[in-house]
This record gives sequence, C-alpha cells and structure tokens, in this order.
Amino acid sequence: MLTYELRKAPGVPLYEALYRHVREDILSGRLPAGTRLPSKRALAENLKVSKITVETAYGQLLSEGYIRSEEKVGYFVEAAVPPAPKPLPPMAPERETPERFLDLTANGPAAFPFSVWSRLQREVMLERGDSLLRPLDNQGCRELRRAIAGHLADFRGMAIDPDNILIGAGTDFLCNLLIQLLGRDRRWAVEEPGYGKIRRIYAAGGVECVGAPMDDQGVIPETLGDAGVLHISPSHHFPTGLVTSAARRLELLKWAESAGSYLIEDDYDSEFRFRARPISALQTMDRQGRVIYMNTFSKSLAPSIRIGYMVLPPELMALYRQKLGFYSCTVPAFEQYTLARFLEEDCFEKHINRMRKFYRARRNRVADALESCGYAGKLTLLERDAGLHFLVKVDTALSDEALMARFREAGVRVRTLGSFYHSAAAAEHFLVVNYSGLDENELYRLNQVRL
Amino acid sequence: MLTYELRKAPGVPLYEALYRHVREDILSGRLPAGTRLPSKRALAENLKVSKITVETAYGQLLSEGYIRSEEKVGYFVEAAVPPAPKPLPPMAPERETPERFLDLTANGPAAFPFSVWSRLQREVMLERGDSLLRPLDNQGCRELRRAIAGHLADFRGMAIDPDNILIGAGTDFLCNLLIQLLGRDRRWAVEEPGYGKIRRIYAAGGVECVGAPMDDQGVIPETLGDAGVLHISPSHHFPTGLVTSAARRLELLKWAESAGSYLIEDDYDSEFRFRARPISALQTMDRQGRVIYMNTFSKSLAPSIRIGYMVLPPELMALYRQKLGFYSCTVPAFEQYTLARFLEEDCFEKHINRMRKFYRARRNRVADALESCGYAGKLTLLERDAGLHFLVKVDTALSDEALMARFREAGVRVRTLGSFYHSAAAAEHFLVVNYSGLDENELYRLNQVRL
Repeated sequence: MLTYELRKAPGVPLYEALYRHVREDILSGRLPAGTRLPSKRALAENLKVSKITVETAYGQLLSEGYIRSEEKVGYFVEAAVPPAPKPLPPMAPERETPERFLDLTANGPAAFPFSVWSRLQREVMLERGDSLLRPLDNQGCRELRRAIAGHLADFRGMAIDPDNILIGAGTDFLCNLLIQLLGRDRRWAVEEPGYGKIRRIYAAGGVECVGAPMDDQGVIPETLGDAGVLHISPSHHFPTGLVTSAARRLELLKWAESAGSYLIEDDYDSEFRFRARPISALQTMDRQGRVIYMNTFSKSLAPSIRIGYMVLPPELMALYRQKLGFYSCTVPAFEQYTLARFLEEDCFEKHINRMRKFYRARRNRVADALESCGYAGKLTLLERDAGLHFLVKVDTALSDEALMARFREAGVRVRTLGSFYHSAAAAEHFLVVNYSGLDENELYRLNQVRL
Repeated sequence: MLTYELRKAPGVPLYEALYRHVREDILSGRLPAGTRLPSKRALAENLKVSKITVETAYGQLLSEGYIRSEEKVGYFVEAAVPPAPKPLPPMAPERETPERFLDLTANGPAAFPFSVWSRLQREVMLERGDSLLRPLDNQGCRELRRAIAGHLADFRGMAIDPDNILIGAGTDFLCNLLIQLLGRDRRWAVEEPGYGKIRRIYAAGGVECVGAPMDDQGVIPETLGDAGVLHISPSHHFPTGLVTSAARRLELLKWAESAGSYLIEDDYDSEFRFRARPISALQTMDRQGRVIYMNTFSKSLAPSIRIGYMVLPPELMALYRQKLGFYSCTVPAFEQYTLARFLEEDCFEKHINRMRKFYRARRNRVADALESCGYAGKLTLLERDAGLHFLVKVDTALSDEALMARFREAGVRVRTLGSFYHSAAAAEHFLVVNYSGLDENELYRLNQVRL
C-alpha cells in the first residue's frame, strides 16, 4: 500500500501533496507502468485522509495522463507518462544601466502630460464601465476614430470619414496589415535613402522590397517601374528633411493611377514643423483612391503608447472588411477611449504646442553646443524645416567610419547620412542629429570630440 | 494688385486667411499658371498688413507648391498645382443598438476589477514617471515578463525564464509573428474541428493551412504528414472540450522532434477549469525546444485588454532576436506595467477565483434554464471539464440548419458543432453553448424555442 507523509503546507492542499507524491513515484519509476493503485477508499484509510482528497488527487493524475481508470477494476499507472516539469532556471540578472553618453540617434518624448492622462483614464473607467470590456470594433473604437478625424481636419486640413480610419498598434503592425491587404505579389518600393526599419518590416513580411531613388523634388517616378506600392514620407523625408514638391506629388499620383499602384503616405512627425504650418497631406490630392495615409502618436505622445492609424480609400476599406475583418483591434480599449478624450478636450493641441516650444529651445541648445565647440569651423548646419532632427555637414578628410569613431570615443552616439542608404552610395560627411531623445547634461561631450 | 478683405477670425491668423485667399484664386484659375504675384512689400502695403504676414503666407504657398520663387525676380503661380481638399463628408450615423437577444456565441467577461486596475494605473504613473515613455524592450517590459513567469509557475507549474517570454497585442498578432519567425514554406496544421479564426489568421498570413483530424485522444499524428507546424489546444479543445491524453501528447512531441516541426500550444482558457486543477502544459514535457506556449488575458480579464504572450524555446527566441528584433513591442507601456502589478500583488488570483465562482453559478443557471424548458427531454448536456462553454446534444429529426432557425426565431443565437468543421463532416445536432458573454435577463427565451 502506498504510504506517504502528507503534511499540511501553506498554499498546498492535501490532495495536491498526494498528487505530487504519486506523480513523483511514477516519474521516478518506483511505480512502474501497469501498476495497479489502491482503491480510493483503501488509500484514504491508509493515509488518514478523506476519500475526497484521494479522489481529487486521482482525478488530477487521470486528467494529466499519469494513470488510467478501468471501469469496475481500478486505477493503473499509464505506459507513457509525461516527464516532470523542468526545474526553474535561475533568473537572469537585470540588464545593467548603460553608461552615460550623448545619444543623437534616440527618439523620445521630452515630457508627457501624466496628470491629465491619469484623470482621463479615471473618467473613462468611471463613465464607460462594463462597456469597456466588450470586444472592440476591429477598426478601433468609434470615439477615437471620430476624434482622429477631427484632429486631421484641424491640424492637416483633411476631410476624413471616421469609417475609413483603422486603428492599430503602431506602424510596424499597420505595415504588416497592408501587406495582407494589398498582397504579396506586388513589388514594394521604399525611399532610398530612408528609415531602414520600414524596409525591414516589408522584407520580414515576405514581400519583395526595392529602393526608390530620390532627387531634390522627392522620389523619381521614372525609377518605380512595376512597383505596386510606394511607401513615402512626402511632407518630411527622413533623414534629409526633404519636402516632396507639389509637381512631384502630382506626378506620383499619376503614376499610381496609371500603374494601379498605391502610395502609402507616412506622415510620421508632421506635428513638429517649426517654420510654417505643416504642409498639406498628399491624401488630400488623391481623387482615385490610391493614397493610404498613415500616422502614429509615437512622436507626439510617446513611442510606448503604441497607437497608430491609417486612412484607407473607401474601396480598400471595403476590401479590408471583407478579407481581414475577422482580426481583433490590437489597441486596448482603455487606451483608445483615453486618447479620444485627450484629442477632443484639446489636451493634445496644448501638449503639442508646449512640446514645440520645448523642442525649439532644445534644438537651439544643441545647435549652440555644436557652434561653440572647438571644431565648429568645420561644421555647417542644414535644415529644411525638418522635424526633430537636422543634418550637419562636416568638412573633414576622415572617412565616415573614422568620423563616427571620433564621436564614439567622446561618448557621442550619432549616425551618418550614409547609414540610411540601403544600396546606393551617399554623399559623405553628413551627420544626422536627432535631438528629441538626448540628455542635455551630456551635451558637453560634443566639445570633447577630436576633429 | 491682389486685394482681399482679410478679416480676423478666431483661430485663423491673418497669414492663414491670406494664404487661403491666394490658394483659392490659384485653384479656381483666377490666378493662372505663370502669373507673377506682387512683391511681399507691395502686397503688405496694399492689404495694410505687416510684411511678415505676407511672408508667412507666401512661405506656406511655396512649401505646398502653389507658387515658386525665382531669385531676384519674384513669385510665380506654379504650372501644376495640387487640387483643393475635399469637403468634409457628413458623419455616418452611429450604429444602432442591436435588438435584445440571448447570445450563446458571445465571449465576454462578466466583471472587471475597475477600482483595483485604476489604482494600479495611478501608482504606475506616479512611480515610474518618464521611464514609461521610452521605447519598450521589444519582448515586452521585464516586469511583466517576470510576473507572467511567476503566474505560470503558480497556476501551471511551469518553469519559465522571463527572457523567453514575448508579449504582444493578442493571439492574432502573435500568430502572424510566428509565421514570420517559422517561415511561409512550412505547411501549417490546425485542429479540425476548431476555432475558425486561427485558420483564417494563418491563411491571411499567406501560409498553406490544413486541417488536422482528431480522435478522442487529440490530434492524430499519422494525419500530419509533412506539416511543419501544428497549432493545438491540448488542455482544452474548442469546441469539444477534449483534453489531449498524455500518451498522445508524447506522440505529438515525438512527431515534432522527428519531423523538425513545431507545436503551438494555445492554452487560451486554462484559468477556468472547474473540476480539478488545470492540466499540466504540454510545454513542460518538451525537452527539445519544439513547443511554443501561447496564452492571453482576453478570457481572464477582458478581450479588449489586448495582451497576449508566448513562451519560445531558447533557440527560437535567439532566432526571433536576430530576425525580428527590430520590431517594436505592440502593447502600451502603461498597460504592461499595470498588468505586472496586478499579477504580482495577487489581484489576478483573487479576480480569477471570484470569476470562477461567478461562472460556475452562471453555468448552473444556464443549465437549469435548459433543463426546465418544455423540450428539456430532448436535450443531453455534455461536459468534459470544459472552460466557459458546454455542448448540448439535441434529439431531433431537424437538420442543423432548421434547428438553428428555431432558436433564431426565439431570439437565441447559438452555433452547432458542425459550424466549427472546415471540411470534414461533423456529427449533427450538437449545440455549442458559450455562457460567458450572455445577458441572463434573456435566458427566458430558451423556453420560447419550438422544438
């Protein structure tokens, strides 16, 4: 007869202790396959526990497949039993805090309206209650889509029907959705130079991805060949800051119309234009449903907020509903309703205005630091009403690689324009200076670069 | 000379008003292509506005491509100008509230710990502050991964290294990530019958997807052929409630090992097992890195919370980091840190215990309603320790279609087992009764079905 010492331990009920003992005996081979176990009553008496305890332990062993039951005969150890769980591996140590450095490659918001956001979160929960728990409309909640349409009308002069807006967990996700919507048999073109991540997303998504060369008007339509999709940032190209001209926009639209192709307009930091009003969106020029407008709140609120959206032409939205309408929306309901209020109560406009002011001052401090360092004579700042970065031309005989090394030695992280080219050769000696995510206490490092 | 009446309107600065007037004249053809515009000084004097106002308006027209500047000559209307924005379409009416009915197909949480959640959200914001704004570790924040590992140890006896956990915005998203990770050249097998959405996700993701037939032990390994991936729910199959036997689990593992294939263990509602402790996960039996464990908080918290996770074998996690590590995490930081606390402060366990009790009572009320209606004699309730649904066998001569129609006429939404088969023929006359999302006030409708 099986005999175990069943001790009461906090959090471990008796049946669980019994289950573990028997399981261990089975796993260790002390109870070989085919062994008949004592009846529940007999074992309960032997162990001085209730029959229910044994029943529950046997039930657990049965349902996990360690034993089997033969009607009116009894319980037997199974021939093939699952192995025991692995022991818990020791926890890997926390990644260490990185050394301090000046990071001219980082993006990051300088501030966030925590108290307003927190108040809106509480209001949303109190007022919406259980309705927050239901599965969401897969395009995103109507309130947020309406608020975004209002925001696009105010900030970008765009006339958007909220029914054509689709909300998703950031650009990466939305690009992947577009691959499924538009199809993998198209060739996808991305700006060259450009934001390397976009190319990686399309490549990972399984589409053929080619670079689209640019001149000083924007992407050159003649180079697009039989591309079926072109992903561009016409209002503000990264990293050059180039704004695609009106004439070029019309040419690109014409190309898309005649080729049956689509333009993905990535309007990623249109909120931060300091000289004039943001330029009109390409989407407003589209008459034939060839433009997909895309934007996120990563730059304007925080990358970690993970809310992006697309405006699809009506025909594509109909196709989405038919083909992909079974997908769940990827953004939590709490976040969507909170952001909807944030936009509607004009908190967003106030926040953007505050951030614009802040970034303008930050930009000036970074420019001052560059213009006052020992090698300032070798630098030329280039700005084309860019968003949160500018270019710096360095007059040097060093290679780009050696140039980067000099900055690195002084604890400055920076990228050259060349690193944004995938295949074509780039002009040398241009630094791309992102200033939204840096730590101003580290600006002194610029002065320590030996150039 | 251009003459406009520039009126001050709230929110519209003078330069904006001037910009709009000139743009309208260009778009309407009143200012044809090539027309030379007055100098800034001359127009400012004519309109009695400051030169800066004209400068800003011209700058806007320039940057949007309506006019061009020729150095030392002046400003000219461009040949190809962008069309004007479309007028705002009228807002579509809100979708109407649906008629009342008894929905035995809906999933939904019956309650949510709003006040606890709200408190944790506030604490997270107060304590973490700006660190919430930085881009997240792309596997998800460490605190949440550690809390999930703790949860899996407590609830499922699983020994998981948090570094092997990957957090994402729900099952749909995670399945798509797996397609990219494991590759489209594999054949993907899904349970037949099964949760139809999984098949649709894989099909939309561009992989060949086949049904894997099941017997009463689980998926039959011999039918898997050269499948490279098998997506299963061994602890609780939907809709039959079947638990894959231990012997079958070992066979499936062996198949995966010898075929170089992967098993995706979808453990979607293991929290709600009422008879015994949840059965051990297949993942704990895996010694060769063939099992990917997947779960979400959709059932245990709310579908709208949009947090899911996977546990990858170390080799696959290394591959993920190398191949897809550029992706951003899709779940907002606020939500991740809040859930981490919710798990760590044992709020989750309390919530689950409360919900288990609630659902057990709900299940009994639904069963009572069925067992007390006029046609109760024709019904047999079948339960296999299922989660939040059970099967009902109906003794009838009606076709499944006619049977559904009878329920529909009484305002009851229900699905038959047959509707979960993709290709194979199913046994007729089984109803799948989901009870987590129904409105108990509508239970009386069961009595109005004519059977």
